Amino acid sequence: MNLTEAIAKLDELEKSTYALNHAQSILYVDGDTVAPKNSWKGRGMALAYLTELAYKQLVNPETGEMLETILQHKEETDEVTFRKAELLKENYDEYNILPMEEFVAYQELTNESGAVWHDAKEKSDWDLFAPYLDKIVAFRRRFASLKDPSKPAYDVLLDQFEKGASMESLDPFFRTLREDLSPVIKEVAAREKPVPAFMKRPWSVHDQRLFSRKVMALEGIDPLNCTLGETEHPFTDSTNKWDVRITTHYYENDPFSSMYSVIHEGGHALYELNIRDDLQFSNLANGVSMGVHESQSRFYENIIGRSRAFCTPLLKIMKEVFPDQMKDITEEELYSAINLSKPSLIRTEADELTYSLHVMIRYELEKAMIAGDLKVADVPGEWNRLYKEVLGVDVPDHKRGVLQDSHWSFGGIGYFPSYALGSAYGVQMLGQMEKDVDVWTTVEKGDLAPVTAWLADKIHQYGSLKKPQDLLPAAMGGSLDAKIYTNYLKKKFSELYKL
Amino acid sequence: MNLTEAIAKLDELEKSTYALNHAQSILYVDGDTVAPKNSWKGRGMALAYLTELAYKQLVNPETGEMLETILQHKEETDEVTFRKAELLKENYDEYNILPMEEFVAYQELTNESGAVWHDAKEKSDWDLFAPYLDKIVAFRRRFASLKDPSKPAYDVLLDQFEKGASMESLDPFFRTLREDLSPVIKEVAAREKPVPAFMKRPWSVHDQRLFSRKVMALEGIDPLNCTLGETEHPFTDSTNKWDVRITTHYYENDPFSSMYSVIHEGGHALYELNIRDDLQFSNLANGVSMGVHESQSRFYENIIGRSRAFCTPLLKIMKEVFPDQMKDITEEELYSAINLSKPSLIRTEADELTYSLHVMIRYELEKAMIAGDLKVADVPGEWNRLYKEVLGVDVPDHKRGVLQDSHWSFGGIGYFPSYALGSAYGVQMLGQMEKDVDVWTTVEKGDLAPVTAWLADKIHQYGSLKKPQDLLPAAMGGSLDAKIYTNYLKKKFSELYKL
Repeated sequence: MNLTEAIAKLDELEKSTYALNHAQSILYVDGDTVAPKNSWKGRGMALAYLTELAYKQLVNPETGEMLETILQHKEETDEVTFRKAELLKENYDEYNILPMEEFVAYQELTNESGAVWHDAKEKSDWDLFAPYLDKIVAFRRRFASLKDPSKPAYDVLLDQFEKGASMESLDPFFRTLREDLSPVIKEVAAREKPVPAFMKRPWSVHDQRLFSRKVMALEGIDPLNCTLGETEHPFTDSTNKWDVRITTHYYENDPFSSMYSVIHEGGHALYELNIRDDLQFSNLANGVSMGVHESQSRFYENIIGRSRAFCTPLLKIMKEVFPDQMKDITEEELYSAINLSKPSLIRTEADELTYSLHVMIRYELEKAMIAGDLKVADVPGEWNRLYKEVLGVDVPDHKRGVLQDSHWSFGGIGYFPSYALGSAYGVQMLGQMEKDVDVWTTVEKGDLAPVTAWLADKIHQYGSLKKPQDLLPAAMGGSLDAKIYTNYLKKKFSELYKL
Repeated sequence: MNLTEAIAKLDELEKSTYALNHAQSILYVDGDTVAPKNSWKGRGMALAYLTELAYKQLVNPETGEMLETILQHKEETDEVTFRKAELLKENYDEYNILPMEEFVAYQELTNESGAVWHDAKEKSDWDLFAPYLDKIVAFRRRFASLKDPSKPAYDVLLDQFEKGASMESLDPFFRTLREDLSPVIKEVAAREKPVPAFMKRPWSVHDQRLFSRKVMALEGIDPLNCTLGETEHPFTDSTNKWDVRITTHYYENDPFSSMYSVIHEGGHALYELNIRDDLQFSNLANGVSMGVHESQSRFYENIIGRSRAFCTPLLKIMKEVFPDQMKDITEEELYSAINLSKPSLIRTEADELTYSLHVMIRYELEKAMIAGDLKVADVPGEWNRLYKEVLGVDVPDHKRGVLQDSHWSFGGIGYFPSYALGSAYGVQMLGQMEKDVDVWTTVEKGDLAPVTAWLADKIHQYGSLKKPQDLLPAAMGGSLDAKIYTNYLKKKFSELYKL
């Protein structure tokens, strides 16, 4: 196979892979949003077959030869094509680890397990979900050991979500977070502020739906390219920059839960929506890693969405949609309300200060599960113990405890650390952004376009074309430094709580 | 290939076909319901590839041999397997008519055309849609002439939606409808009743959504197996009996438009939901023809849903959801309101008496288009002329005229007559049902289960296992007789309007 033939073959494979991924992606989104509950069986059959097709078209000697040919001709290949081949080779190697039947069976397992997790969460019943997690853990361990027997299995899994992440780098990262933040969390807890009366007013789902649209508009999301669905657990899915889906979950007693889901998922969406046109419909048309992805979502959610400046445009649209509830509320009161900090049960609703410790707990549990030191049956007990030890809270049931997140149900073991890494990346990006953009003036005016343009320029546009290690230093002004993150949090919450 | 091998091959093909159909079906539903407007491009690419795969796995010598083998061994093959092969052979022959590229191109055309139709309808702009319809008509004509050059092209298309239907049988059918109903329509128009004041009250979409759920429950639809979406044009889609989707469209000035869409699509859904378990995930797990399908949807919509007896449970749930609007309204007033008859513009909102003439107009236009006697550019003029001639109404714009229906945009030329045939079938089924079931007593009690059980027994359970000509005579107590249908309508409206 010569280079021209190899590039033609890559092009063809790209088209068919796009089609199969597109179909699978929409089946998942549909399954999680509007599909009837009993539809999992037929969907599972369809997904299994699509997985089988994807496997077959990727794992064959011809693909191997094509990839070798391109990768051996770096000099004569343009950057985009070379990077496509490089990324595809990673997939190819992974798919070659296990026979097709095992991949298909795993695919069916996670499809079913997603449905079971929903049910188990609703019923707060760990025993329903445990047999599935048992199988998922076994598969992930086996996969990791086959992929790279020289490394601890959990490092192999971490690397899948954030290239280069390992326990060696994450252990000290989380240690710094815990050491630096625990004293602040205690001080803040000692000065506990009451939940303001206005937050206890009822917030109809009907009005919250209208509010979501305004929040998306404020964030600069074009509804022609991105729609909002409703799910138990909010997520973002993208097939291309003209077809992005985000979801949220409404609670009648709290408008901020859904609002921050919308802003967070909207941040993921903006990343996908701003990827260059010429990378679309290829394997480069996705955010490059989960850490970088979470840096964007958490940037909008917290750094922008929980800033003092954001309270100006936010209060304005809240008064439009919720005139009764927001009557007489000032920006300052709103700022205080959206930054109430208190150790709590639910990660996605945690305040900015305590958030990373929720992630740390999951990191510790995953490490132990994958190392084989913690049995699935013992996970709830250990979860509850860590929540008490680290955050000082008692977990009343599994629904609000170990069953709250969907990640394990789809096999996302090793994913959680990305949330904390992303949060830290984002804070360092802010430092750089402030050199180029008058961030708080434009946010206060309700114009987030300059913020998004900066992120699009540094991060979004490239999709997966540039590796995290090529993107991040420029955007962050250096390498990861947990201290910058903890100092940001210490400063913000010292001011808020007058410590 | 021996019979055992052939059956194994059929089984394998059935699984992969199910998977591809499932994916395509969900992509369509998603595209019409919640997908971002700009998502059509990526979806088109995915659908084209799935179509290509479906074509390739069906159209090959091995499939041909498998089908021949089974069809030659009717005696040794069970009924279900034989019928699967028989139906598949029809597909196989159709797919063999044209090269794959043409099918894929047509698939892409209809995907795009669906999006363009939406836009054209919104803007009431025929010229936007016309070039697409031009290509669709050309394709359908070419397809029909290749499929069976011995028959008029339109007969070939009719046969695709209702086996055996032809202009020879439909011309007199529609002639009877027009001759028998036109005088009644005129008499009714002369005694025009005013629209009752309560119907002019506002009906919030929020409340209508709640109402839809109650209507579905009344109809006996299990939301675990069937969900309701919202689209410009209501439809039903089913991948299997545990995954059926219906859609509706809400208007703030009219609760009955959406309600009758829900009941109508719910009738389609019940057909799919009641197909035997052992036929699922095969080509027999669908209603057998559009005429039979419409007989079910229009049975629930009109024969049940616009009956005097149904007003008892209907008024009850309307008073629950719309206490202000329905205050002081009696069952008799409701019955009169839902049966107001007046020649109008929109087929899906037409009353039972004038409905079939809307269909007849489309039938005449399609005949002329496919015969080549009517250019696409001249369709709007002819549409407006026929609406004036047949129904006496002036069409103010294309949105409420020639662009109102989605059918032509997806290539469904020859589909419309099924609505009128189905309506007529349904009336004959009622005559038989009344011999077995105390229909009006149970409907009045709000218990539709005995009605559905009768239809499930006679029609639903079989899916496509039995042909229309084997199903219908038993369910209808004989063959189609337009007079039974027109007599039913004449009697109902003579009583309602005291003619």
